[in-house]
Amino acid sequence: MKDFMIIKDPKVARLFADQCRRDILHNLRKREMTVYQLARLLEKNVSSICHHLNVLEKAGLVEQTRTLIKGNLVEKFYRATAKKFIISYTLSEGLIPDSEDIAKWSKEVCKSAVRNLSAFGYDIPVEKEKRLFELIEKYSSLKQMAFEEIISRQKKPVKVTGPSLKILLSLLESIRLYENEEFRRIMNEICEQLKGLKVT
Amino acid sequence: MKDFMIIKDPKVARLFADQCRRDILHNLRKREMTVYQLARLLEKNVSSICHHLNVLEKAGLVEQTRTLIKGNLVEKFYRATAKKFIISYTLSEGLIPDSEDIAKWSKEVCKSAVRNLSAFGYDIPVEKEKRLFELIEKYSSLKQMAFEEIISRQKKPVKVTGPSLKILLSLLESIRLYENEEFRRIMNEICEQLKGLKVT
Repeated sequence: MKDFMIIKDPKVARLFADQCRRDILHNLRKREMTVYQLARLLEKNVSSICHHLNVLEKAGLVEQTRTLIKGNLVEKFYRATAKKFIISYTLSEGLIPDSEDIAKWSKEVCKSAVRNLSAFGYDIPVEKEKRLFELIEKYSSLKQMAFEEIISRQKKPVKVTGPSLKILLSLLESIRLYENEEFRRIMNEICEQLKGLKVT
Repeated sequence: MKDFMIIKDPKVARLFADQCRRDILHNLRKREMTVYQLARLLEKNVSSICHHLNVLEKAGLVEQTRTLIKGNLVEKFYRATAKKFIISYTLSEGLIPDSEDIAKWSKEVCKSAVRNLSAFGYDIPVEKEKRLFELIEKYSSLKQMAFEEIISRQKKPVKVTGPSLKILLSLLESIRLYENEEFRRIMNEICEQLKGLKVT
């Protein structure tokens, strides 16, 4: 199992739009499981899980690990092919043909982030929403790009557990962004825009 | 279910050291489940899951949601009390009595992050390891502090899905760190220390 897989094919990226497929992948990252185990856990019928697994296998996101013969029954075990799947920024920015819907979804994600600033005490006036949305979109895109560059230059498998890897990746991303002049400019403007909007 | 819970009691934080308890909490964040469902999924015996659930319930990390009567059997459903549990930086820095072991674990996490910089192409000479470890520890601590401050000032429940919330929290954290002079100083030194250590 690889540490990371960057998804650059819009057809493959689209598979992640489905909650059930995301749930399957999520579980198969942690352990190998059979169709029956997945069906029981996710409370879906076996034929639906079977279908999803076939689709995910063809896309290279899951693979068969072993089979277990139980009487007349052959049970196949599956697992994910990577610990983490990352949708490439080239798709979420619509830079690749046929990725317009993914770019649109990615815009919605940023819009919804701006709208929820209020949950953390920022009172955003309507006239500022548009610019803030543009800035956060840019912020998110530079962050994604930095992350993708880091993992695409991975030299060997990481030998660390969750929390260490998280800090390591966050640090490498911070360094990259910190050294990026465009990122500094965007952060300055975001800070400027949010100044005085915090309700205490 | 709350969005976040910050753990400030070392006794409660210590519960997260156990893999099986982490697995239980992970699953109960997504759906309510019975002892039997958890035992089957995690391949543990029922009495062990029962014991863990009692401990987690007493610590306020899980709660009973409903009971289902099946013939003679009463099945209780459980779920986590928050979507995300955060170990407070006051523990991971050993600022609170009886949190020395948690602080020690947290140091190990940072050490292991430094050691794995090589997986991403940085060749760290032995004489630089100590200073880099100190800097990454400080980096991680400022990051944790910023995150905790943000979520402890949450005004109302967030109404967003995973990716939006992730961007929103990352942005708020970036703003806080970006405006923090100590953080800038640390980032400058980390960049300085790593300069020229990248193998291409």
